[in-house]
Amino acid sequence: MTRAVHLARQPGTHIAPDDFEVRDVVLPAVQSGQARVRNLFVSLDPYMRLPLTARAGLHPAKGPGDLLGGAAVGVVEESADPALVAGTLVVSQSGWTEGFVAPVASLRALPADTPHPSWHLGVLGLTGITAWLGVERVLKPVRGETVYVSGAAGAVGSIACGLARRRGATVIGTAGTDAKCRLLIDEIGCATAGNYHREPVSAFLARAAPDGVDASFDNVGGATLDAILGATRPGGRIGACGAISLYESDDYRGGPADFFRVIEQGLTITGFNAGQAGDDAPAIVSELQQMAAAGDILVRETVVEGIAAVPAAFASLFTGETTGKLIARLG
Amino acid sequence: MTRAVHLARQPGTHIAPDDFEVRDVVLPAVQSGQARVRNLFVSLDPYMRLPLTARAGLHPAKGPGDLLGGAAVGVVEESADPALVAGTLVVSQSGWTEGFVAPVASLRALPADTPHPSWHLGVLGLTGITAWLGVERVLKPVRGETVYVSGAAGAVGSIACGLARRRGATVIGTAGTDAKCRLLIDEIGCATAGNYHREPVSAFLARAAPDGVDASFDNVGGATLDAILGATRPGGRIGACGAISLYESDDYRGGPADFFRVIEQGLTITGFNAGQAGDDAPAIVSELQQMAAAGDILVRETVVEGIAAVPAAFASLFTGETTGKLIARLG
Repeated sequence: MTRAVHLARQPGTHIAPDDFEVRDVVLPAVQSGQARVRNLFVSLDPYMRLPLTARAGLHPAKGPGDLLGGAAVGVVEESADPALVAGTLVVSQSGWTEGFVAPVASLRALPADTPHPSWHLGVLGLTGITAWLGVERVLKPVRGETVYVSGAAGAVGSIACGLARRRGATVIGTAGTDAKCRLLIDEIGCATAGNYHREPVSAFLARAAPDGVDASFDNVGGATLDAILGATRPGGRIGACGAISLYESDDYRGGPADFFRVIEQGLTITGFNAGQAGDDAPAIVSELQQMAAAGDILVRETVVEGIAAVPAAFASLFTGETTGKLIARLG
Repeated sequence: MTRAVHLARQPGTHIAPDDFEVRDVVLPAVQSGQARVRNLFVSLDPYMRLPLTARAGLHPAKGPGDLLGGAAVGVVEESADPALVAGTLVVSQSGWTEGFVAPVASLRALPADTPHPSWHLGVLGLTGITAWLGVERVLKPVRGETVYVSGAAGAVGSIACGLARRRGATVIGTAGTDAKCRLLIDEIGCATAGNYHREPVSAFLARAAPDGVDASFDNVGGATLDAILGATRPGGRIGACGAISLYESDDYRGGPADFFRVIEQGLTITGFNAGQAGDDAPAIVSELQQMAAAGDILVRETVVEGIAAVPAAFASLFTGETTGKLIARLG
């Protein structure tokens, strides 16, 4: 039997495990051009919260009964297409399911000797590409600059820290626990780290960057983005990657309270997302692979076991309990 | 007797002429290193509203009794500094006064044969520099692109339209009267113009740029900025020059309601102001002078007569009644 996570009811402001249900699914027979895949890992990402809000935006809204989730890594169990043999590792957008049948064209094959299949959901997947775009294409920090990363111990943030540090910038970051802050200093390469539960981000920035911040990689939005606007040097730049602090609020789409500082201080805010990589994605992934192998970026995962663990793990993303990339291991 | 415009009382949401009072001022004797100047023209600019709000921001707050205004062009009547002779035209930051005594070092002399002294408050002053920075340094539109300018018939907007068109872009603009819209088409070089009192800016943009806008020069903020966010093509850019629609609201500093589109669509918002020109200001002004002489940019002024006309004229800036640069002629 195959199990999958579906939406049970429209979530309120804060999602709860009860908003989801793990259902038994009967997979259809494999038709010509299709394959049946058994998932090994599924990805849990903050953006998956957006289709569960009242204003879904870019991602189509989901309602009760809909399958949730996004990227997954699995192994082909049966194929009706000569281009893809059983046993092949594949990346898909299957959602949170133990298995599925899909057109072979929708699957991306990985080499048989792939050492860390789950990395293709994180550092070598949309997570890593997003961090790379924000640092290498948007912010482009240079030696001598101070770069602030919010959500610095998270999936994208931890990679962004490594990329910015590799370019010679002084990296400072915030996270939600003392343990994460230690990780930021000891393993992720931050010069200074702050626990936003202990001091406001504005106070942290005043302490860690008394002369101002040159560039920020913001995953958090809301009050954190306002703190960034207040701490950024004239002409400074802000990469807007996400707004996780707002995904469980009444309206995650609204702008910062002190947006006018953009005009007063001549700041630049640039949004970005993995979709912008386009045809460059393979080259970016190859670069990330080399950096991960060289230890320039720390690959950190929080792994939960089994499809039944997905709802509670997903809810924990928004209370700041996970470190690095959150995945569920199903295999 | 010299008269000057002072703040009479803290304005409410909408300023009224009664919030100001024209006072008689006795000028002090001219000391060594100083000069006495009789103003010929004073500048009335939207940003001067900001120090009269509850959250003044970059510009120090002003209270009852304070002199208002900013840039002025005048003629030296008496000088106690050999470097500046009587009769010289000077640009100053005297505020809304018929005359003043100030250190010679705070005055910038203009050539004796300056053909249009008032232009140094507009196209050859902070107004022109602001438009130049937004088009030439921030947006850099190229042939084939569609550029939207809000407040397009205003002081900065009308120059921005000319600069963008000169670069080969298709320029579209909105203004608040049908007469201004005709001006946009007939003299300012817009391909399409819309009256925002007749159709929402979002509807105008859908009509004038059905394939989306590449770059926008926003003087208006608020709902107009939201319409821009909705109409900008993926990866497009927005120059944030001002937010005049918000200067008479409870909070002009807040961000757009649908800021999240910045992330979803990979947009860039860059703020700018004339202060960023720094040492490049003379070269920028020289370039603007050549373009104005060549007719590439239309120099349009709304001129009111006498210091007593300043309060009502200033209030009219926020009801959209002026076209081009608003100045008062005092000479």
